[in-house]
This record gives sequence, C-alpha cells and structure tokens, in this order.
Amino acid sequence: MSASDASKDIDGKAIAATIRSEIKDRVATLRSAPGLAVILVGARRDSQTYVRMKKKACEEVGIASFGFDYPATVTEDELLQKIQELNADDKVHGILVQLPLPEHINENTVIEAVHPSKDVDGLHPVNTASLCSTGTHAGAEKIDWKDMSSVPFHIPCTPQGCIELIDRVGTELKGKNAVVIGRSNLVGLPVAMLLMHRDATVTIVHSKTTDAPNVVNKADVVVAAVGRAEMVKKEWIKEGATVIDVGINSVDDANAKRGYRLVGDVDYKGVKEIDDVKITPVPGGVGPMTIAMLLRNTVNSCVRSHATKGE
Amino acid sequence: MSASDASKDIDGKAIAATIRSEIKDRVATLRSAPGLAVILVGARRDSQTYVRMKKKACEEVGIASFGFDYPATVTEDELLQKIQELNADDKVHGILVQLPLPEHINENTVIEAVHPSKDVDGLHPVNTASLCSTGTHAGAEKIDWKDMSSVPFHIPCTPQGCIELIDRVGTELKGKNAVVIGRSNLVGLPVAMLLMHRDATVTIVHSKTTDAPNVVNKADVVVAAVGRAEMVKKEWIKEGATVIDVGINSVDDANAKRGYRLVGDVDYKGVKEIDDVKITPVPGGVGPMTIAMLLRNTVNSCVRSHATKGE
Repeated sequence: MSASDASKDIDGKAIAATIRSEIKDRVATLRSAPGLAVILVGARRDSQTYVRMKKKACEEVGIASFGFDYPATVTEDELLQKIQELNADDKVHGILVQLPLPEHINENTVIEAVHPSKDVDGLHPVNTASLCSTGTHAGAEKIDWKDMSSVPFHIPCTPQGCIELIDRVGTELKGKNAVVIGRSNLVGLPVAMLLMHRDATVTIVHSKTTDAPNVVNKADVVVAAVGRAEMVKKEWIKEGATVIDVGINSVDDANAKRGYRLVGDVDYKGVKEIDDVKITPVPGGVGPMTIAMLLRNTVNSCVRSHATKGE
Repeated sequence: MSASDASKDIDGKAIAATIRSEIKDRVATLRSAPGLAVILVGARRDSQTYVRMKKKACEEVGIASFGFDYPATVTEDELLQKIQELNADDKVHGILVQLPLPEHINENTVIEAVHPSKDVDGLHPVNTASLCSTGTHAGAEKIDWKDMSSVPFHIPCTPQGCIELIDRVGTELKGKNAVVIGRSNLVGLPVAMLLMHRDATVTIVHSKTTDAPNVVNKADVVVAAVGRAEMVKKEWIKEGATVIDVGINSVDDANAKRGYRLVGDVDYKGVKEIDDVKITPVPGGVGPMTIAMLLRNTVNSCVRSHATKGE
C-alpha cells in the first residue's frame, strides 16, 4: 500500500448485514430455533426503540424472540422470578434485560440472576471473569480468541463488534500496538481484554492520562469509547491506523433538521485526511454491530445447549 | 531529587514486617480473633513450606489458623464438602486452598466453591469480576482504591503487594505511565487492573509484543511478572523509574552452595546502575508481601463480617 492511499470508511452497516446473513444461514442448519427473551421495564422511548430493533433483527435471522414488558413500578422480586423461569426454559437460550432499570431495582442483582450461559449481553460476573482471564489456570480450556463463536462463554456485544470490524477489514492485531481510550465496564475494559487476547500490546488511556495524544499516536489500532464529542483529533492518529469510534454524541447544529447531529469521539473529518487510515463513521460504524453480536451470542448459546445435552 | 541520586532497593522484607505489625495492632482492637482455614492436599515440599509460613505468620499477628491436611488421593467431593462446612463456619473468615491441587481435582471447581467473601486469595470469579470493573454500573459502590483495606471484596495477594510496595516508597501512580510485563491471571492482569484503578496509564506487554524494550522505556513504573530470568535489561528502564520484580527464577551457579541462585525477571545489577531507580531485590522484594496481604485480606474479611452482622 503506498503512502498516498486515501483513507477508507469501515462500513459497519454493510458488515453487520453480512454477519446477519451468515447467522441466518447458520440458524437454518439448526434442528430448532434459538430463542431470545427480552425484558423491558418502563416506557423509556430509547429502550423501547432498542428492544423493537432487537426483536426485528431476531425475526429476520430465524431467532424466536419472547417479549416481557413490565411497568416501571414492577418489583425487583417479580423480575427475579421471571428470570428464574426463563433460566429453566429450554426454548430460551438468551435472556436480555434492557438497561437502564428504574432506580428502585438493583441492576447488578438482576444481571447476576441471569444464568451465565444465557447471559447474551455478557454482563454476568462469571462471564466478566472469563473475559478477564488468560486461561493459565490449571484446568482452564485453551480458548481460540480468533473464532469468537467458539469461545465457551458470552463476550459483551459492543466490544465483540469492535473486534469483528477490525478483523473484517483485515487489520492484523498480533504484535501491534492498540490503544483503548476509555475504561468503562461496558466497552473500554472488555475491548482492552479482547485486544490483549488477540496478542496486541494494549494501552488503556483515560481521563487521568497526561499525554494522551502522544500515547494514541503510537497506536496501530485505536478504539475510542469515552463519550466526548470529537475528542480524538487528527494529530493523535498515525498514518495507516485503524480507528474504531464507539462514541455517539449529539452536538447542536442549527443547520440540521432536528437541531442537532450525531458525532463520534473522533474528529472523523480530520482523521479521514490522514493517509491509509481505516475509520468507522458515526452513525453506521460500531452501532449496527452490537445487535449482530447479540444474535451471534444467542445462536452460540443455543448450539452449546444442544452440545451439553449430547445432541 | 538530582539526576545523580543513586538507585535504591525497595526493602520488601522490612515493609512487610511493618505491615504485619500494623495488622497485629488492628487485630488487637477486634472483639474476637480473625480465623484462616488452610487446606493442604498431598505432600509437595514447596506447598508444605508455604502453608507452614502462612500459619506461622497468622499466629504472630493474632489470627487463628485452622489446618486441614489431606492425602493426594482425596476426592474432589471431600474437598468441596469441607469447603461448604468452612463457608458456614462463623469462626472462619478466610479459606485458603494451597495450589496446585493433584490432577484429578478441578482447581476451578474448588476455587469457585469458596464463598467470595471468604476467598482471601482473591481467585473466585466474583472477586475477579469486581477487580476488572470500574464501578460505573448503576448501583455499584464507589471504591477508594487508595485504601485497599476498604475495598469491599478480595484483591489477590501478590498483585496487592506490588501496589503496596509502590505506595510505601512514595511513588505516585496517578497520570503516570505504568507497564506490566506478563499477562497471567495470578499476577500480570490483576496488577494491570490495580494500576489502572489508581489512575496510571497502563500498558500490558507480553510474549507477542514486538518492541518491548521501547515500550518499557516509557514507563515510570514497571512490574515484571513473566518468570524469565533477568529478561528485563538495564537499557529498558528509564531514569527515575520504580521497578517491581515479581519473578523468582533459579539459575545455575557453580559458586553457590546449592549449585543455583535465585534471580528475578529483571537484571537487578544492571538496573541498579541507573540513576534514581527504585527496585525490589529478589529475594526480599515482592515475596514477603504476599503473606502480609493474605493476613490483611483475612482481617478485612473478619471486620466486614462483623459489620454485616451489625456489630
């Protein structure tokens, strides 16, 4: 590749569509349909939209979705009872509790009630611990991190989607410098762990980092997940880097129809001027991958449940 | 500090003695003695030695230790039954299963049988998940990582000891570059998490890292935990760095009485020539800290159990 190659978009929308179609083919080979239970509490517009999108995506690939909608006044006990029921239900391979929950319900308690094998969001402590381990304990299975479908536990969807994008555009990770900007439980930390499992040398940059531009400038791969509009500037990114922008921030824009527009954590326009860079647009980059990975986790869970039963 | 300041040893032996004496004072204020159950399986000489040292250290600070010795032929079920019993025992605040276990016993099953609140080795998945979280989940407690006695779960002993050494020699972590060499479950990964929680910018270097000397050379704090004799050279370390050497490797030495001597993962002699460096010797650096942190975890567990009972 010559130094004058233009930078390229990483088309998350198209890649996610390809993956959904692969999943559909895989589901067609299964004896019975995988099932995803979706629990929605309250009437938040954004949560309702996400749940609707997830159910629709299930339908398209042949996953059965079971919706359970509760008013915001539901008690924690009622939710826990429903989760126990779903844990025991053979037709349900994934249980998704749409977050956030109302304040009177302890999210951690609810997350921990889901059986780890059905925790397709990858949020249960047992799944977190597996992700944050290197399998060097005696008795631990040797994990092939290159094939995330074969990993015997659930990897959180958005982080998994980031790695999938990197793989699908052909960026090598082994031995490369990767920098994750942000250290949240939901994205930054799990992405850092996945990059490490794929043999990248990983640095985690955060709000207390003193020389972020300099650190990021050494990275072959950058994942930005901080939630600060266009924080990562052109000068931070080196030629030829792959940039995954997880941020979705709305900024005021008088010219936009709705009065605002969505931007990522990276100055997309600036970075696009660098040679040889691959970068996800916002929207249309990481966003569409999250649901695709949820579908994959659900199918994996179904396949593993058959294997456990010796089918 | 002038550039010509000589480098200094980090005296783990003396620091551990100070901590044990602090623990002894704290135990003296408790209404009843903390208790540590120690399970030893088989007749490995090294395991027997470690267990003896741990029991002796308990005794010196006023912790009651309860030993349970089993032959190498013990079944997994027998161990699990004993652990259940100890989980339910009010006089036992910590349960330590000396590793490794014989091959016919699944170590992970045994580790997961210990109640997380009594898992003073910090190996249970629930403790791992807590260590690998940033407390940004709704409902998560705000954790003060500067006071490891106040952290409401168990941090593994050797990683905790590394941070304690860094603190006790007055090295600042916030905003500094820290490099961890090695990504094991037992040391590398947990140390990286602790350094991150203390607001260092952390890079994890491992066998697949292509330019380790260069990466390490940017570090204000280096923790080496790979188990390769004197792998980290003088040229890797920058002036003024704090170097924690977790490695204990035996190398042939015809001049030594036993025909070998112990060295760390760092070329101690070479690094000592650098100005302003603080470095742990091997032995006498990290080693003595592990048991001190085990004692601390046991006392913390006892104090928390009183608090839970509203005492």
